[in-house]
Amino acid sequence: MAEPTSMAVLGAVLRSAEHVVIGSHVDPDGDAIGSSLGLAHALDSAGVPNTLVLASGIACPSTYAFLPGAERFRTPSGVPAPPVFVALDSPDLPRLGAAESLAREAGALVFIDHHPDALAEGHLNLLDSTAAATGELIWKLLPCLCIPPNANIATCLYTALLTDTGRFSYSNTTSHTLRTAAEMVDAGAHPNEIYASAYENRSAGAQQLVGRALARITLANDGRVAYSWIDDTDISETGALPEETENLIDFVRALGGVDVVLLAKIGDGTVRASLRAKSDSDVGAIARTFGGGGHRAAAGLTFEGDLAGLLERLLPALPGGDQ
Amino acid sequence: MAEPTSMAVLGAVLRSAEHVVIGSHVDPDGDAIGSSLGLAHALDSAGVPNTLVLASGIACPSTYAFLPGAERFRTPSGVPAPPVFVALDSPDLPRLGAAESLAREAGALVFIDHHPDALAEGHLNLLDSTAAATGELIWKLLPCLCIPPNANIATCLYTALLTDTGRFSYSNTTSHTLRTAAEMVDAGAHPNEIYASAYENRSAGAQQLVGRALARITLANDGRVAYSWIDDTDISETGALPEETENLIDFVRALGGVDVVLLAKIGDGTVRASLRAKSDSDVGAIARTFGGGGHRAAAGLTFEGDLAGLLERLLPALPGGDQ
Repeated sequence: MAEPTSMAVLGAVLRSAEHVVIGSHVDPDGDAIGSSLGLAHALDSAGVPNTLVLASGIACPSTYAFLPGAERFRTPSGVPAPPVFVALDSPDLPRLGAAESLAREAGALVFIDHHPDALAEGHLNLLDSTAAATGELIWKLLPCLCIPPNANIATCLYTALLTDTGRFSYSNTTSHTLRTAAEMVDAGAHPNEIYASAYENRSAGAQQLVGRALARITLANDGRVAYSWIDDTDISETGALPEETENLIDFVRALGGVDVVLLAKIGDGTVRASLRAKSDSDVGAIARTFGGGGHRAAAGLTFEGDLAGLLERLLPALPGGDQ
Repeated sequence: MAEPTSMAVLGAVLRSAEHVVIGSHVDPDGDAIGSSLGLAHALDSAGVPNTLVLASGIACPSTYAFLPGAERFRTPSGVPAPPVFVALDSPDLPRLGAAESLAREAGALVFIDHHPDALAEGHLNLLDSTAAATGELIWKLLPCLCIPPNANIATCLYTALLTDTGRFSYSNTTSHTLRTAAEMVDAGAHPNEIYASAYENRSAGAQQLVGRALARITLANDGRVAYSWIDDTDISETGALPEETENLIDFVRALGGVDVVLLAKIGDGTVRASLRAKSDSDVGAIARTFGGGGHRAAAGLTFEGDLAGLLERLLPALPGGDQ
């Protein structure tokens, strides 16, 4: 089950599939949506029938509704067990949310992912934690699908790469990342338009929500950690859509002089915390000790309790804390 | 005087110079500072003595103080007329500010610039408006200086490229831009560290101030105009420095679906309003009717009165207003 799969084998399997269902993780981000749509367009080019399902909800998050094919996402319920299910940007089956059972029922289950904690739970597993985004792996797969890139594929995968590198700002941004982005631009992706759509098309409510998060920035651990928070009241009062909370932490992390930035989303009895490292702290390792996951520089966890309880337990584990 | 100069000729002239003074434009941005320092490091490698002068002020702006060699900038006054003066990122002599007379007195005056309105006022002129940044031209010049790139050069020139493309977001971002950035990364530039230094090094007070402005975003004129405001109390309560209020409107303008964004800074009896067009509205023309000024897409005005008075008069003149 856990054998690594070569691009060539995976390409052959997908090319010969009668039907492919593509799923990604719950709370889909730009890489989940972009890599899914990029693969769908690639399979279209290869003449392979395909269906896009979302692990949570039916519609593509509005932030990525500009992407070609965004209207093709549907709910997994009612989709028959497919010959091939491709799980994108998901380290394990539970992350597929409502699509998990469909994935389990598939004739062949394929995982394509760049998360370091990916479990290789598929029959075929294309896992590469050196890739900046799952979209980069789809881009590399194109020659093995025997199709040339086109503008739709390039636009979706550039969006995956752009967003999963934080606009080429995270430490996963290498010269290879930038060259891959350049190839996508040559194939028809427009950096200016994609950036404006992904980052400069926010609703008034989303902007107000960012405002609340920024206005509440608080320094802790002798200034080495900054945290802020939003709750359901903020979301309802501003009218921001739930998915517009996705990259809130990118605004908070523009703060200088700190090692770690923490944004807490306070729900009913739970707090979902996003962590970003601004130094060489490994927030992924810290998140895992709290049952969460992620990368060295970007991680998350869910805490049962309130913000005060989270801070009491988490701050000591962060830089400048007493652990 | 206005003959275009080949890279090879320019490289030969610089390599054989006894001393080179490097200047750039007043109110230096990341390209002015980055291309200047990049050239200085390149000349160091080539064994050519060089001096960096700033057209306004003595010290490098704090935003770019992280760049290697930033402490080398000095005021032009007292610098003897050099054998060679290189003017970077400046379309004409007046833009050199306090360094203009030094440029005029130089044995050879060289202009290296990417602005489309560059006047070719040097003895040698390396002008290329297809370059995304002047730093890109310096990068292309390195082989003609017969030196390999190094990490200092790459760091300074990557900063020039990053900032003059708005983090690879403006329409000048091409596949060539991204490949050039990749070359710089291969030579030792760290995208993560440079981005963090240039964009994510804001003070907590500055971030809180942005938060207040965003939290107050209000739509008007049937949603075609968004406005917000800050006042002196916000500045004193957050502890933001006055210069940290300068680009506040860039955060507000990440709002989508509006034609014009307005940020009001409320003072004692006056309101300073910044306007940005997100469609083809000419906010410069509107600002001029209120005694202000600016360009089509970016303008400002000062109003005698309070915010309510400003909005009462200004909103009707903006898109969706009744004028």
